[in-house]
Amino acid sequence: MIKVGILGYGNLGKGIECAITQNPDMELKAVFTRRNPESVAIRTEGVPVLGTEKLSEMTEEIDVLVLCGGSATDLPQQTPEYAKYFNVVDSFDTHAKIPEHFAAVDKAAKESGKTAVISVGWDPGMFSLNRLYANAILPEGRDYTFWGKGVSQGHSDAIRRVEGVKNGKQYTIPVEAALEAVRNGENPDLTTRQKHLRECFVVPKEGADLAKIEAEIKGMPNYFADYDTTVHFITEEELERDHSGIPHGGFVLRSGVTGMSKENKHLIEYRLKLDSNPEFTASVIAAYVRAACRMNKEGMTGCKTVFDIPPAYLCAQSGEELRKYFL
Amino acid sequence: MIKVGILGYGNLGKGIECAITQNPDMELKAVFTRRNPESVAIRTEGVPVLGTEKLSEMTEEIDVLVLCGGSATDLPQQTPEYAKYFNVVDSFDTHAKIPEHFAAVDKAAKESGKTAVISVGWDPGMFSLNRLYANAILPEGRDYTFWGKGVSQGHSDAIRRVEGVKNGKQYTIPVEAALEAVRNGENPDLTTRQKHLRECFVVPKEGADLAKIEAEIKGMPNYFADYDTTVHFITEEELERDHSGIPHGGFVLRSGVTGMSKENKHLIEYRLKLDSNPEFTASVIAAYVRAACRMNKEGMTGCKTVFDIPPAYLCAQSGEELRKYFL
Repeated sequence: MIKVGILGYGNLGKGIECAITQNPDMELKAVFTRRNPESVAIRTEGVPVLGTEKLSEMTEEIDVLVLCGGSATDLPQQTPEYAKYFNVVDSFDTHAKIPEHFAAVDKAAKESGKTAVISVGWDPGMFSLNRLYANAILPEGRDYTFWGKGVSQGHSDAIRRVEGVKNGKQYTIPVEAALEAVRNGENPDLTTRQKHLRECFVVPKEGADLAKIEAEIKGMPNYFADYDTTVHFITEEELERDHSGIPHGGFVLRSGVTGMSKENKHLIEYRLKLDSNPEFTASVIAAYVRAACRMNKEGMTGCKTVFDIPPAYLCAQSGEELRKYFL
Repeated sequence: MIKVGILGYGNLGKGIECAITQNPDMELKAVFTRRNPESVAIRTEGVPVLGTEKLSEMTEEIDVLVLCGGSATDLPQQTPEYAKYFNVVDSFDTHAKIPEHFAAVDKAAKESGKTAVISVGWDPGMFSLNRLYANAILPEGRDYTFWGKGVSQGHSDAIRRVEGVKNGKQYTIPVEAALEAVRNGENPDLTTRQKHLRECFVVPKEGADLAKIEAEIKGMPNYFADYDTTVHFITEEELERDHSGIPHGGFVLRSGVTGMSKENKHLIEYRLKLDSNPEFTASVIAAYVRAACRMNKEGMTGCKTVFDIPPAYLCAQSGEELRKYFL
C-alpha cells in the first residue's frame, strides 16, 4: 500500500481524497492543513486532519505527500521545503517559472534522496506530454492548443471585481471553425480572437447598470478585450442551478508532414472533456504518486516531470500485464 | 549523429528513409536487403544498399538497426537474431504473440548488452500508450478503440482473392454514431457491426458477374460478414486515381468517472488522421531509434516497449529545453 498525505484541503485536495478511493493500492494517511484542523471535515473515515506542524513527525509514515497549494505563493515555497523530508507531487502551473521551480526542487530532493514530481495535471501535464510526443514523431509541423469548454477561475474572478456585479462565471470556449481548420491541415495562423470565445454569466447587484457592466467586461484589457465576449445576465438561483460545476478540457493538436517531398499530411489530436477540472487533475496526480513512490524505491531521486517518467511507472500492473492488456 | 541501418526496403523501410531526413541528428548508414542489392534503388544519395550477409561486418558502424520486415515470419526470427549484434527497433504488431516475442528479444538483448525496442508504431505504439495513460488516470472507466478511415491491407487482399476480381481496395470506417455515443459518455456496448463499416472499391475482370462478386464479398466470414459492407465497382483507372494512397488512423477513447459518488464524467480522446500509414509508423520508429540509442548509452539494456521509455528520451532537446517549450 502506498501511504499518501495531502497538504491543503481545497478543491484539489478533495479530488486527491476521491482519487485515492479509486486506486486500491493507495491509502490516505493524513490530511494536513494550515487552518485549524478541527474546522476541517474530510470525507474519509478514520483519517486524521492535522496541522502542518505535525508533518515533521510523520516523515516515516507517509510514502508520498501531495502538495495541493496554489502556484502563486504556496508551491514555490512548499515543494522545495517538503522535498527535504518527503517524496512529493505538485501541480505547479506557472509555465514561465517552471525552470526556477524545477531547480529549487531538484536541489532539495537530490540532497534528501527524495523524488519530487512537479507540474502534474493536464496542462501542464497530459497536454505537455502530448505536445512532446507529437513533436518527437512529427518534427515538421505546427502545434495548436485550445482550452475549453471550461470555467476559467481567473476570468470569473475578474468579472466579480466589476462594479455592480454580485457574482459571475466565465467559460472559455474554443472556436469550432478554428479547430476544423487545424483538423483539415490548413495550418492557419490564428489570432487570440480566432481561437477562443469567452462567455460570461453575470448576476448583477440590484439596480446595477447592466449596459455599463457589459461594456466594462467586454473592454477589460488582457482578460476580455482581445476576445469575442458574450455577457448573459442571470439570477443567483440560475447561476447556482446551471453553473455550479467546474468543467474544463481542451485540445492539443499537431499537424505535420512526411515524405520525401513533404507530400503526406498527418494530424495528431488529444482531447479532454472534463466534468470536474480539480478531480481530473487529482486523478492524474494519483497516477504520478505511484510513479514517485516506485522511482524513489529504485533510487531515481531529484526533481522529475511527466517527461522523465516511464509510462509503466504510473500503473500498478506488472510489465507483463501491461503488455498483454494495453500494447 | 545517430547512425541508422534499415533492414528491408518496403513501404516501412522507405518511410524510415524519409523520417531520417527530417531528424537532423540522424544519418542513414546503409540499407540491407534480402533481394539482390543491385536491384534496389534507394532515394538517399551516397548510401549503400547491401545484402544481409554484410550486416555482420557493420556492427561497429551502426548505432540502431531498424527491422522493417513483417510480423508473421520475419520479425519473430530477425529481432532476436539481430539484437545479438545491434540496438534494434521493430514494429511487431501481432498482439497475441507479443509476450513470446518480448521474451525472445529480451533474452538476446540482455546477453549482448544491446537495447531492443519492439512493437513501435501507432497500434501497437501510440494507441497503446494512450490506452495506458488513460487507464492510469481513470481507473474506473471504459476503453474504446476505433480504426479508420483507412486502408486495411488484409481486407484488400481478401477482396482480390474473390473470383472475377481484378483489383480492389478496402476502407475501414468508424461508425460516427458509435463515436458520438462514446464521446457523450453513454458507455455503449457496441457490436462489431456497430463500430465499423467496410467500404470496398472493386475492379472486376471483364465479363465478371458483379452481383456474385458483391454477394461473395459481403458474405465472407471474419472479413466482411459481421459488418455493414458496401461494394463499389470501378475501373482500374479510377482505382489508381482515387485510391492509390495508404491513409489510416483512428481513435482511442476512455470514458471514466471520478468523485465520491462517481458523479463526474470525463472523456480522454486520442485521434490520428494519417495520409500515409507506413510513413507515420516510420516517424514514430525514428523517435524510438533516438531513445534506443540513448538508453543503450546509459546502460538500459534488454527488450523495451513504449511503456518503458521516458518520453524525454524520444527528443533531441535537453531536459531544460523540453520543460521550457513543451511543459
